[in-house]
Amino acid sequence: MDFSSDTSAPAHPAIVNGLLEANHGAAPSYGADRWSSDAREALRDVFETDLEVWMTSSGTAANALGLSCLCPSTSLILCHEEAHIERDERGAPEFFTGGGRLSLLPGAHGRIGEATLEARLRLNRPEFVHETPAAVLSISNLTECGTLYRPHEVRALADLAHKAGLRVHLDGARFANALVTADCTPADLTWRAGVDVMSFGAGKNGATGCEAILLFGEARSLKGDLLTRAKRSGHMPPKMRFFAGQMLAYLRDGLWLDLARRANVSALSLSGALLEIPGAELAHSVDGNEVFVRLPHAAVDCLSAAGARFYPWPDGAFRFVCSWATRPDEIEAVRAIASALREAD
Amino acid sequence: MDFSSDTSAPAHPAIVNGLLEANHGAAPSYGADRWSSDAREALRDVFETDLEVWMTSSGTAANALGLSCLCPSTSLILCHEEAHIERDERGAPEFFTGGGRLSLLPGAHGRIGEATLEARLRLNRPEFVHETPAAVLSISNLTECGTLYRPHEVRALADLAHKAGLRVHLDGARFANALVTADCTPADLTWRAGVDVMSFGAGKNGATGCEAILLFGEARSLKGDLLTRAKRSGHMPPKMRFFAGQMLAYLRDGLWLDLARRANVSALSLSGALLEIPGAELAHSVDGNEVFVRLPHAAVDCLSAAGARFYPWPDGAFRFVCSWATRPDEIEAVRAIASALREAD
Amino acid sequence: MDFSSDTSAPAHPAIVNGLLEANHGAAPSYGADRWSSDAREALRDVFETDLEVWMTSSGTAANALGLSCLCPSTSLILCHEEAHIERDERGAPEFFTGGGRLSLLPGAHGRIGEATLEARLRLNRPEFVHETPAAVLSISNLTECGTLYRPHEVRALADLAHKAGLRVHLDGARFANALVTADCTPADLTWRAGVDVMSFGAGKNGATGCEAILLFGEARSLKGDLLTRAKRSGHMPPKMRFFAGQMLAYLRDGLWLDLARRANVSALSLSGALLEIPGAELAHSVDGNEVFVRLPHAAVDCLSAAGARFYPWPDGAFRFVCSWATRPDEIEAVRAIASALREAD
Amino acid sequence: MDFSSDTSAPAHPAIVNGLLEANHGAAPSYGADRWSSDAREALRDVFETDLEVWMTSSGTAANALGLSCLCPSTSLILCHEEAHIERDERGAPEFFTGGGRLSLLPGAHGRIGEATLEARLRLNRPEFVHETPAAVLSISNLTECGTLYRPHEVRALADLAHKAGLRVHLDGARFANALVTADCTPADLTWRAGVDVMSFGAGKNGATGCEAILLFGEARSLKGDLLTRAKRSGHMPPKMRFFAGQMLAYLRDGLWLDLARRANVSALSLSGALLEIPGAELAHSVDGNEVFVRLPHAAVDCLSAAGARFYPWPDGAFRFVCSWATRPDEIEAVRAIASALREAD
Repeated sequence: MDFSSDTSAPAHPAIVNGLLEANHGAAPSYGADRWSSDAREALRDVFETDLEVWMTSSGTAANALGLSCLCPSTSLILCHEEAHIERDERGAPEFFTGGGRLSLLPGAHGRIGEATLEARLRLNRPEFVHETPAAVLSISNLTECGTLYRPHEVRALADLAHKAGLRVHLDGARFANALVTADCTPADLTWRAGVDVMSFGAGKNGATGCEAILLFGEARSLKGDLLTRAKRSGHMPPKMRFFAGQMLAYLRDGLWLDLARRANVSALSLSGALLEIPGAELAHSVDGNEVFVRLPHAAVDCLSAAGARFYPWPDGAFRFVCSWATRPDEIEAVRAIASALREAD
Repeated sequence: MDFSSDTSAPAHPAIVNGLLEANHGAAPSYGADRWSSDAREALRDVFETDLEVWMTSSGTAANALGLSCLCPSTSLILCHEEAHIERDERGAPEFFTGGGRLSLLPGAHGRIGEATLEARLRLNRPEFVHETPAAVLSISNLTECGTLYRPHEVRALADLAHKAGLRVHLDGARFANALVTADCTPADLTWRAGVDVMSFGAGKNGATGCEAILLFGEARSLKGDLLTRAKRSGHMPPKMRFFAGQMLAYLRDGLWLDLARRANVSALSLSGALLEIPGAELAHSVDGNEVFVRLPHAAVDCLSAAGARFYPWPDGAFRFVCSWATRPDEIEAVRAIASALREAD
Repeated sequence: MDFSSDTSAPAHPAIVNGLLEANHGAAPSYGADRWSSDAREALRDVFETDLEVWMTSSGTAANALGLSCLCPSTSLILCHEEAHIERDERGAPEFFTGGGRLSLLPGAHGRIGEATLEARLRLNRPEFVHETPAAVLSISNLTECGTLYRPHEVRALADLAHKAGLRVHLDGARFANALVTADCTPADLTWRAGVDVMSFGAGKNGATGCEAILLFGEARSLKGDLLTRAKRSGHMPPKMRFFAGQMLAYLRDGLWLDLARRANVSALSLSGALLEIPGAELAHSVDGNEVFVRLPHAAVDCLSAAGARFYPWPDGAFRFVCSWATRPDEIEAVRAIASALREAD
Repeated sequence: MDFSSDTSAPAHPAIVNGLLEANHGAAPSYGADRWSSDAREALRDVFETDLEVWMTSSGTAANALGLSCLCPSTSLILCHEEAHIERDERGAPEFFTGGGRLSLLPGAHGRIGEATLEARLRLNRPEFVHETPAAVLSISNLTECGTLYRPHEVRALADLAHKAGLRVHLDGARFANALVTADCTPADLTWRAGVDVMSFGAGKNGATGCEAILLFGEARSLKGDLLTRAKRSGHMPPKMRFFAGQMLAYLRDGLWLDLARRANVSALSLSGALLEIPGAELAHSVDGNEVFVRLPHAAVDCLSAAGARFYPWPDGAFRFVCSWATRPDEIEAVRAIASALREAD
């Protein structure tokens, strides 16, 4: 019953196999190998567009590198007040941008509303030297509340941002989980909806650690700057082929979507089990592989005593995360506890 | 005949196997897994001392993170003018220290001489606010010329540095290759000789990419700062276990020394083959797995035409690098070319 | 009728005279002159304690330098969401700290409430590497709403901050104006109430531009770091004597308090005049030399048409600032407009 | 006998008067006042070209701000190994550029030779991501050895730099002293010779502290970036008018050239006096207001004992600096000591 994080899951065998396949003979370093170029092609196919890509070992690196190509040291990034880049990356955006800032937007269920963004953008005065102007809108999809932005919602935010001269960044650490629920193409939920740069995560969905930075459309011109920043921050390890090998396996035959679907289905099922606990209620809708639920103290104690692992959240709810590796018996165990609690009620 | 770099070699099967062994079941993220703690123990055994460790995917990251724990943004790092941190890391030390500087020392064959260091330290005036004072001495072993510092040489430099209030950093990207030649214990060539912090490289010696930062003695107190900086720079990927698994395999039964020995033997053999070329002469002694050799133009053309890969060096010599994966037939091919050139002479 | 800012006022003749008095003969550079040491003594007398001091040409420099001595690049500064360091300094705290952050607290009338601070500090987890911990509480007195913290209020906030391991910074750009209203000693409103480091402004109160950074108590040990950062940021001009000469004149015979009192009296009088406008109401109490007032559109147009200069504020109110140089006839002119508007009502 | 530095001299009465003249009535802040716009006009006249300008209180600020507009954080600045930006500014270029670097060039008498620059530029590989490429050439005129670059020498260096894609920065802390010796127009020694951005110093030549950053030609487009960086670094004090007032007086009727000429004449005369000391010899030619001289120990002791103030230089020579305020009797006192030493010889 490990629902602590999708990062505690092991890597999927097929993806590890991809890594092994890249371990053949001598190969040029720093991304000049053939697996890296195949991975780029595979990503172009999946996203149905020309794009540039760089792969990193962590989501923090992918987000911070991508953002630092978009936000000068004298500007700021608009994001949700619960965004991962705000709460969980120890100032990485500030470090990589050289002192750029985050400006936080409120919003129910981890989502930034159109009206909120519009009001904030009206305050933006790039010509006023004393104030730090906004250069980027960063959204997460799935959001940090496990909720989804649908294509038309991304598009609405991106349009507002672009109109105000900002560019749009997407933290897609759980993009696969979002996509499966949105039931659209990768293109529809990203560049066609106005995303300029994204972190395309695989580490929470079966890789050993492989997060791709994708540059779409005009943002492709940032490739040189991205490589420079990657090198300078130690994110250009010589043997890039081991990232590439994983990415190839990840995308092959839709494995990435199968794994995400499996995690999402587990989450829905887990959410059903948890809601059988008397007094339990969802804090947010379950749009992906995360369940945020309010629980009575007794239930929390019971679950913990039975060995379930999950985290209390700052807002008083509890977060349960499923992964591709979540087993039915783990969910059944929760359901059994729920039954016991219901009977005792 | 790929002598371009030891980073073009594939990963060694036993080390990849170590990675696979760490792929079992759920495990806590961010280094709290059992492989990580086993790897720390294994490093303590190998280095015969208590130490702290953090693992990264690139040597640039390992160097820059280690240095940034030692050098405030208002100070500088003394290093050889050909040091990797000066020439090949795109300003990573400056980025990670927040604007710290490098101050370059000359020295034959990539080595800093005692007298040179002593003279430089006499100019150091930490109390003079207008000048940037030195906080760290960074040496590489093997040096960037493929040469070795022996324990008493490291000790002499470290003593001078410590007396002047500096701490000592070791770039050990090719530490295994150095150690095999020095024929002493890892401790003798590091903390017993005065090294405070080191980059302990495995990526050039058979890993997929795994460079450990080791903190010795009093420098162990920097662990908290190191973790903070690792997180902030994206060098705290969730699944640290895959670094740890490799490190365990790397150290097991002295594999790391076997691999380095193999590479060094190949380099000596290659160097013999190259010196059979009329007019060829070594630029530096071959103390590890690198051969720096001056070659007639015709020889360079011949080798290239035959498909040999190697790099011209800024000083006019050519660098040939061997790895654990260098095959005897690659060296024999060079020897055959040398013979042909000798006969044509 | 220039109420745009106290920075538009000319320098007071006595303070300019102080500058001239320092222009005698050769003198050592960089603060080693006798005026600088006299100024330090004068500040010690005024604040009734030993302290360290450095003078700068701008309030932004004073704030950012002081904060950068207190906040590591990996930590954050708590401040009010309307603080000058947040709104009007173009990311200077982030730049000087090397990527430190601001975390914003709400609060009516520009003041941080005890309960708000306490709740925020409960979320502070310095041991959790993924989150940026708070290292500093920065308050402004006068606040950016022109309101006052009294000594016991400063003390309450400082106690909370210190208990949580933070240090306390005071932006005292309008400290003289605050002090005159608080009617206590400089010590009572600063170090005796728990302030560790402050910006002591003179530029808004009659100097040509002279903002002192004061280090109290244990923070005096930061002097070396402060000088290093001042040098490195270009805030160590050779002829420090011209700052010192002004500071000496500023403090002599309580001139600084006389000037602040004059500005405060003007503001009270102006506020009275403005409130005679039908529909006018204060947004905040007038505790110093600033009046924030809500005004009917017609009144705004009338005042502007008559040549009055003042700024609209983001919250919909209008800011009028008085200085030592505000003339009674400027206020009378406002009163006349108010009368006209009242009659027309 | 104070020859320690031209920064120990008092401000010239006419320049202080300029400051007083700007102290009239209310005036807009941040450089929007009429004195600032008059100063810009005066500079345009003097330099016979359109230009942009920002004024700062220190030479370090002027250099670092100017350089940071030219050099990205991922690039480097070529300068002489004895340059002020390397030796005496405590890492300000690294701080303001966000981790940019200096790369040092040797050269006799503080001057960079054409051949040296050409050889260095041949090593520049902007397309090679692992190396830090050069973005700027920074020269000082007067150099740090008190020597002069003539217009054709500046032009030769600037041409090489421009051809390689670099821009050219001039540290003109003692530009007036250089110009008087070069006996040409300000334009000839700057933009007509290829200078893009310069620090135009007044502080060593009679101001209280006023160093202008000038942007010529295409570099004028950097004005917005320059203002942003000035604000962010605390170099946008509200009352810019007090810089502007000084600059107006400085340029009026060629005062700046008269003061520099006076200092240069004093230095020549002082140099003559010093050379009368047996064993004394010039280390560099006296092209401006500085004398670098090698002196026997006994002479050094004698001069010091008589109260002369001057500095030992790292190369073993001694530096004597004259200013507009150097008095004939100070030089006569040196001459008298020289006579005594000659007689005792």
